[in-house]
Amino acid sequence: MKIVFIGSGNVATHLSTALSKTDIHIIQIISKNIANAQKLANSIECESFSDTLNDLLEADLYIIAVADAEIKKIASHKFFKDRFLVHTCGSVKMNILSENTNQYGVFYPLQTFNKNNRVDFSEVPICLEASNDEVYNKLEKLSGKISTKIFKINSEQREKLHIAAVFVNNFVNHLFALANEIVERENIDSEILKPLISATFENMYKKNPFDIQTGPAIRNDIETIEKHLSILKNYPKNFVEVYEIISESIRQMYNLK
Amino acid sequence: MKIVFIGSGNVATHLSTALSKTDIHIIQIISKNIANAQKLANSIECESFSDTLNDLLEADLYIIAVADAEIKKIASHKFFKDRFLVHTCGSVKMNILSENTNQYGVFYPLQTFNKNNRVDFSEVPICLEASNDEVYNKLEKLSGKISTKIFKINSEQREKLHIAAVFVNNFVNHLFALANEIVERENIDSEILKPLISATFENMYKKNPFDIQTGPAIRNDIETIEKHLSILKNYPKNFVEVYEIISESIRQMYNLK
Repeated sequence: MKIVFIGSGNVATHLSTALSKTDIHIIQIISKNIANAQKLANSIECESFSDTLNDLLEADLYIIAVADAEIKKIASHKFFKDRFLVHTCGSVKMNILSENTNQYGVFYPLQTFNKNNRVDFSEVPICLEASNDEVYNKLEKLSGKISTKIFKINSEQREKLHIAAVFVNNFVNHLFALANEIVERENIDSEILKPLISATFENMYKKNPFDIQTGPAIRNDIETIEKHLSILKNYPKNFVEVYEIISESIRQMYNLK
Repeated sequence: MKIVFIGSGNVATHLSTALSKTDIHIIQIISKNIANAQKLANSIECESFSDTLNDLLEADLYIIAVADAEIKKIASHKFFKDRFLVHTCGSVKMNILSENTNQYGVFYPLQTFNKNNRVDFSEVPICLEASNDEVYNKLEKLSGKISTKIFKINSEQREKLHIAAVFVNNFVNHLFALANEIVERENIDSEILKPLISATFENMYKKNPFDIQTGPAIRNDIETIEKHLSILKNYPKNFVEVYEIISESIRQMYNLK
């Protein structure tokens, strides 16, 4: 199977790298950023790279791994008439690819990617959607070469999964950043929080987070909450707002008054 | 050194268990809940237990590990005249213990404790504060028997540290619970989120969370944010509120308009 990648960002880099270690042939990298295209092509020993869709080579599958807003325009290129196209994006509906072809789908790896980190793709859940059963079977076979965790996820589900991913990745990271700022303002080394963060993470892995919620909000410990809010008034106002809204959200989830 | 514990909850259980494995003698457990007192006493081979402070035995140190609101009343008991007293609480000032004695302090283990989990105390940061240097040295020696991570933290710092702990433990756990609810409503197994949560955690361990923030809010990707908010309108209102406030907090932290 011959594949062309359009894109050279984090997802394109990790996905093409993982696929290049199988019997798949990645024959071309197309990217607006020609330096990135060349770098990625070199690193996976792919011979062709370009910064324009006009150079596209003949392949069995075109993987569009670019920013959400650019997918539609790329897919509308006439070269893709009756070609096999997928995108890799959590929050974009599959049928955005339908303009030129009946063979299209989504290949969404649910993970956070960073060019400088190694990724064990075998543990990455891959969410598949396809325009028909034949296309689905091809994508399932392809993803089975790099991952053991394959999920059939439609566009509506994938949108929501992407929101959940924002909560557990982007928002959790932001809470870590807020907490670090609190301790660093007190001249305390933020390393002090790491064992607690480890335990938080390990508990979630073993148990349902709903069942193990602790803290002032679920105890309805108004005195502690008020004390915390009065201290946080001396911080930028987002600290108080986040504290109030998450405490309120906990009360709502557990039907506390 | 002979120690009496007042309290038989999560902190008392884990701390007394860790200390009982050293050359420290825990000679008594006092707890309103006599069944818990007996159970804990048995498990650490301590001979005496009671549900009343009137039975207190002579000891070198009294560790008060009870709910925040009960500490002051316990410390005011006349038995503690000139005795050596500590509490184990993050959000209660040290001088609440000063009514009867000049020898007092705080021994705050910064970790989440659950009776059913084992805890490796050697990795638990212990935050110490003392009424004078002699008391501090005693507490430092004591904590060195169970942990390698000892921090000198005053009451003002400890209050803030406790708030940071609420962010990284209680609030992060709540975000996991919200995310699980989102995927479960779509009949997707919440296991699908675990590799992403693992990566979020590992990234935080290796890098400063401030430097690795990703997601629609920091990209100022208004289109995705609006799409997410319109989907979340179909959920209980705390989902939208949490999404909005954390996205806004990210924008504030990075000075995005």
